[in-house]
Amino acid sequence: MANEIGIGFLGMGNVGEKVVATLLERAGPFREQTGASLTLRRVAVKDPTRSRGIDLPAGVLTGDAGDVLDDPSVDVVVEVIGGDGDAGDYVRRALAGGKHVVSANKELVSKAGPELFALARTNGAALRFEASVGGGIPVISPLLRDLPANRVVAIRAIINGTTNFILTNMAQRGDSFEDALAEAQDLGYAEPDPTNDVDGYDAAFKIALMAGLAFGTYVPPEAVATEGIRSLAPQDFEYARELGYVIKLLAIAERHGDGVLARVHPALLPESEPLARVDGVQNAAQIQGDLAGTLTFQGAGAGAAPTTSAVLADVLDISRSLAEGAQPRWDPGPWRNGEALGLGALETRYYLRMTVVDQPGVLAQIARVLGEAKVSIAAVDQRESDEERGTAELALMTHRARELAVTVAIDTLRGLDEVIEVDAMLRVEGAT
Amino acid sequence: MANEIGIGFLGMGNVGEKVVATLLERAGPFREQTGASLTLRRVAVKDPTRSRGIDLPAGVLTGDAGDVLDDPSVDVVVEVIGGDGDAGDYVRRALAGGKHVVSANKELVSKAGPELFALARTNGAALRFEASVGGGIPVISPLLRDLPANRVVAIRAIINGTTNFILTNMAQRGDSFEDALAEAQDLGYAEPDPTNDVDGYDAAFKIALMAGLAFGTYVPPEAVATEGIRSLAPQDFEYARELGYVIKLLAIAERHGDGVLARVHPALLPESEPLARVDGVQNAAQIQGDLAGTLTFQGAGAGAAPTTSAVLADVLDISRSLAEGAQPRWDPGPWRNGEALGLGALETRYYLRMTVVDQPGVLAQIARVLGEAKVSIAAVDQRESDEERGTAELALMTHRARELAVTVAIDTLRGLDEVIEVDAMLRVEGAT
Repeated sequence: MANEIGIGFLGMGNVGEKVVATLLERAGPFREQTGASLTLRRVAVKDPTRSRGIDLPAGVLTGDAGDVLDDPSVDVVVEVIGGDGDAGDYVRRALAGGKHVVSANKELVSKAGPELFALARTNGAALRFEASVGGGIPVISPLLRDLPANRVVAIRAIINGTTNFILTNMAQRGDSFEDALAEAQDLGYAEPDPTNDVDGYDAAFKIALMAGLAFGTYVPPEAVATEGIRSLAPQDFEYARELGYVIKLLAIAERHGDGVLARVHPALLPESEPLARVDGVQNAAQIQGDLAGTLTFQGAGAGAAPTTSAVLADVLDISRSLAEGAQPRWDPGPWRNGEALGLGALETRYYLRMTVVDQPGVLAQIARVLGEAKVSIAAVDQRESDEERGTAELALMTHRARELAVTVAIDTLRGLDEVIEVDAMLRVEGAT
Repeated sequence: MANEIGIGFLGMGNVGEKVVATLLERAGPFREQTGASLTLRRVAVKDPTRSRGIDLPAGVLTGDAGDVLDDPSVDVVVEVIGGDGDAGDYVRRALAGGKHVVSANKELVSKAGPELFALARTNGAALRFEASVGGGIPVISPLLRDLPANRVVAIRAIINGTTNFILTNMAQRGDSFEDALAEAQDLGYAEPDPTNDVDGYDAAFKIALMAGLAFGTYVPPEAVATEGIRSLAPQDFEYARELGYVIKLLAIAERHGDGVLARVHPALLPESEPLARVDGVQNAAQIQGDLAGTLTFQGAGAGAAPTTSAVLADVLDISRSLAEGAQPRWDPGPWRNGEALGLGALETRYYLRMTVVDQPGVLAQIARVLGEAKVSIAAVDQRESDEERGTAELALMTHRARELAVTVAIDTLRGLDEVIEVDAMLRVEGAT
């Protein structure tokens, strides 16, 4: 039983500062909750001379991660560096030394999960990472602790606030992608290089991690079929609205037999779905269990304070165990080798937008090509003919079809003289 | 470290049967998860001769609760009897004997929480009750485990599926309360005696329990200001819709200084609020933490399978600790004696509906009375004059006002010759 628990930090950006500040401010209540004093030992940062938004006790800041990793009085290491470079080395060293690790690092845990979990297990250490997905929304904890009796059927989530902010403004104001991105950058919601968010990689890390926990199968992030939102045009939102849908960047993981299909892409979602009303920087995750049914968890998916809530939930849980003399809990268990499936396994409805030659008989041609691929049309919307160029724009929604059939049909359509371009192909979720 | 954990049941209705069936069916995965075999020992029921929807191993059923409570091979007792009669005696005996208890009993835990928690603590037993609120939605667990770093500011929830089903049908179809109740009874969503649901008592048990966990202050259910939905009329839903609101039975707990104000009543909620779209038998809880912000948890709030998900989450968590040789976790900590406040502390907007004499100057009279009580009018809607009787109906919405001022004004209004009756007074939530 420990009555003092040493906490060390790796990195101290906005989130780290808020976590440290909260640890210091709430020392009393945290001691009452855990039965031990949580003592800030060392904070390792790149540049310890830079001025910070927080006054740290003297001697706490260091430029050497080793001062955290090799300090025997540090029991719990909080990693808020991010990425799988230095952070990965440090987390491995911490776990190998038997230190418990709380990480907000979706990239690291989604890429190296099985290795890190094994390392933790071998060394009697806990690796916790609630803050890595969904900010302050409990997302990891429901999978590990609230739904253990369920067979999880599917996860569907809006887990990237940057893209959800951009899509909300494109939908509500008719902004172009470029304008909406520029505003997100001005507000600090998007980085100067927005690739990680707008091309779907951030969401892919998160859904890979959630899929692993939900299905007990390692899904490497590169196995997540990933498409971003750059190619969406204002008229896609207009067509979607007319059809009764919104467009969201969804992260989805589903069980298909023994395999797992994980994907991130913009999708049409019926306006009546709870996720359709998750706007701006809000995040939400739906977890469908065979007993619990579909549960929806919604809240702020990012920000220093919400992320601090999640980081400290893990720190306090570990501390409580240590104060009781027990082994901290964490264990997602060993993962099976399941198959990570590709989009070929998908069957859903599709939305297509194309530019065609504005002349009679074009729609018949398109319908013929789709029909030959066993793709049937549910709705068509044609408008905005460009008289100068002699072209028209056509949006259509299919009935349920195999993705493979749709992509084959699109290839054939692109070969038609009457079709100038198939500009958009979006999957439809949540409707049969 | 235990490699076999004995489970005993008190009661076996629909929920109990589903829990037992799932325990038997998923013995393999549960062993893998916990590291121990979960063995069904005894099931105590009122009438062991009655035929059941499940085949139990021979010798498991008994008519004597003592066969569960006094069996040293029973480590975990699942109580699914309900109410605070026999169930309370049995739970106390189980805890006193050092057995861990998993209960779905909101009435018992909300009434006797502090006593039961102390009994558990003294005897090294765990008392867990995730299934007591919100069916399969994690509601207790977020308060105890996911938000420990937060100061919880408020809870707002739709936690009675029966009334939400009735209100949804009144809103969407214009049903009367009586018709909507009859349908809920036909479908098995409401009991033959619906008092517990429609008068708000069920929701009051649940919010009392949640308030205790959130604020660390015991709130006895009788301290929850409780109003049911019987007096709502179809025109209240029409007026609400015209004003941009829906009507929901909300359970609310808020911190006011050192006190806690807990209440259950129908309320007008802006259509844009996430809770406004929680329809039918769905439940949802919003928890507002000072770090995490407002989190919303939504799902099926009742039913055998969702409740089984919650019961087994607790059973599996306890079992995992026992298998590791550790003390199972449960601890909401000792509760402070905080003040449970009454509605006098409330300040919000109010909706009033009244029957008045249909003659000029009536509205001026009403406005004068409200004005003298410092209640100012934000919107008025008058219609449906009854020419035969010479009466008209008037609905109005106030600006923010003290509840006390509004009730005083209503008393004065009732004394006016021009006011035949103040038919409805509803609080408005989520708007300033």
